[in-house]
Amino acid sequence: METVFSAVGLESAMKQIADEIDAEFDLLLSIPDDPRARLYQAMRHAAIGGGKRLRPLLLIATAKLFHVDRDIALRAGAAVEALHVYSLIHDDLPCMDDDAMRRGKPTVHKAFDEATAVLAGDSLHALAFEILADTKTHGDPFVRSELIACLAMASGSDGMAGGQMMDLEAEKMTFDLPTVTRLQALKTGALISASVEMGAILGRIPPDSRAPLRGYARDIGLAFQIADDIMDVEGDEQLAGKALNKDARAGKATFLSLMGLERAREQAAMLVEQAIGYLSAYGKEADLLRALARYVLERDR
Amino acid sequence: METVFSAVGLESAMKQIADEIDAEFDLLLSIPDDPRARLYQAMRHAAIGGGKRLRPLLLIATAKLFHVDRDIALRAGAAVEALHVYSLIHDDLPCMDDDAMRRGKPTVHKAFDEATAVLAGDSLHALAFEILADTKTHGDPFVRSELIACLAMASGSDGMAGGQMMDLEAEKMTFDLPTVTRLQALKTGALISASVEMGAILGRIPPDSRAPLRGYARDIGLAFQIADDIMDVEGDEQLAGKALNKDARAGKATFLSLMGLERAREQAAMLVEQAIGYLSAYGKEADLLRALARYVLERDR
Repeated sequence: METVFSAVGLESAMKQIADEIDAEFDLLLSIPDDPRARLYQAMRHAAIGGGKRLRPLLLIATAKLFHVDRDIALRAGAAVEALHVYSLIHDDLPCMDDDAMRRGKPTVHKAFDEATAVLAGDSLHALAFEILADTKTHGDPFVRSELIACLAMASGSDGMAGGQMMDLEAEKMTFDLPTVTRLQALKTGALISASVEMGAILGRIPPDSRAPLRGYARDIGLAFQIADDIMDVEGDEQLAGKALNKDARAGKATFLSLMGLERAREQAAMLVEQAIGYLSAYGKEADLLRALARYVLERDR
Repeated sequence: METVFSAVGLESAMKQIADEIDAEFDLLLSIPDDPRARLYQAMRHAAIGGGKRLRPLLLIATAKLFHVDRDIALRAGAAVEALHVYSLIHDDLPCMDDDAMRRGKPTVHKAFDEATAVLAGDSLHALAFEILADTKTHGDPFVRSELIACLAMASGSDGMAGGQMMDLEAEKMTFDLPTVTRLQALKTGALISASVEMGAILGRIPPDSRAPLRGYARDIGLAFQIADDIMDVEGDEQLAGKALNKDARAGKATFLSLMGLERAREQAAMLVEQAIGYLSAYGKEADLLRALARYVLERDR
């Protein structure tokens, strides 16, 4: 895979975005000299120095198709990542997935405590919308409002939180393939789709011209989750930086349990090719999005 | 107090807003026929049928000064209330204040479970911004964006969540009066101030003309918290619909412990008069805001 990555500079693009997002959060989360310091320390622990920053990179790579200023896309990317990090903190809580490690570090409730973890998640959730509503992110209030509508929808009960609820219910009920697909479309797909959509919003692409980008995002989101299920069974906990194989132990239906390893692999590969097919109208400038689609299958290996 | 209330129809205004907010949430939270049903049931449990709806009423009463359409103000009010309800759900969690009763009903983690409570709070948090970013709330994207900037700031680490963090730290440190004032200005004051500010935003009042309204909101927010501290010691748990006297038991500094009962009462009364003084430029149409200021001292008695 090295050649594919380096051909479009995916590795350097990932390194660059990681540094830039860290720098954004470092500025946004400077620690106040008052009793809120612990909250900011917890937010920094979760938000800075870790993660592949896939969602901001998708946003920026999409925005780049439409020649959006990188600084603008980067702030919107920080908002998406703040929302993603909030969801990780809450998902890791003892009452949810009860995880001790995340991104190779102790989870927030382990490094701090549960109450601080709840508040750090809540604060990053609010921060995402604070960034997007700020005139520094975009001068046009219509664009700001569209970005927020898109991200709020992806975050709540019709998006990520709804998917997480389905995931909790999966321990009690046996889901079929369409229901698992719907669960994952909400739980991880919604925010991946929002990342691409927000790039299109910054590019002022009208909704009825976004169909190919939406198709791309939907397919890589699904491929991402199938790959995640495969990694969950076959992966290395050290490399992944978190506990694996938890779904099978909890008796949850997954793509893997419903399709089997071979069909899951084929399905994920097919989805990635289909996603890349959606980009046919775009030229060389979409190479980063193409490389990201392929990366979805190869990450953490 | 009956005469003051009925003179401006506060009681009927409170009854009306309670019905209207319930109706808004009933529409916004219709239960889907899929495994997310439990999440929506939990959101409805917390959001519908209870609470004094003080924040939406403040927003609507302020917006009314500037002849804002009631339906518009009501949707913005539902957003503020969604944010308030989310904060109550998370504050009640076992890792936070560990409360079993709220608004006379079992708290969400008691009626459902902790994971569902975390997600119901998160979903109401997102819903607040979803409502405000919706073109149905306001046709002008500048107004939508301003409303969101205001509410996001009031919600996060520079507002409510920051105040809640200070409140947790108050169990470990001994706070002086300025620090307790700052804590309460963030924990409850920020959202009360945002409610009034959002009414002014809907009324298209420019920021540099909002000083009297901001003074009013700051003073009633502080009076509200002092009254809360007094009620916490002197109140009736049955009437309040929640456990009382928890701060003293946790050894936290409060307005009451720092000022004593008599001075606290005087201070709260003085703040209410000062708040009403800020409204002198407004005529009879500000009577509801005046009555609300007085009500802050008298609620739940």
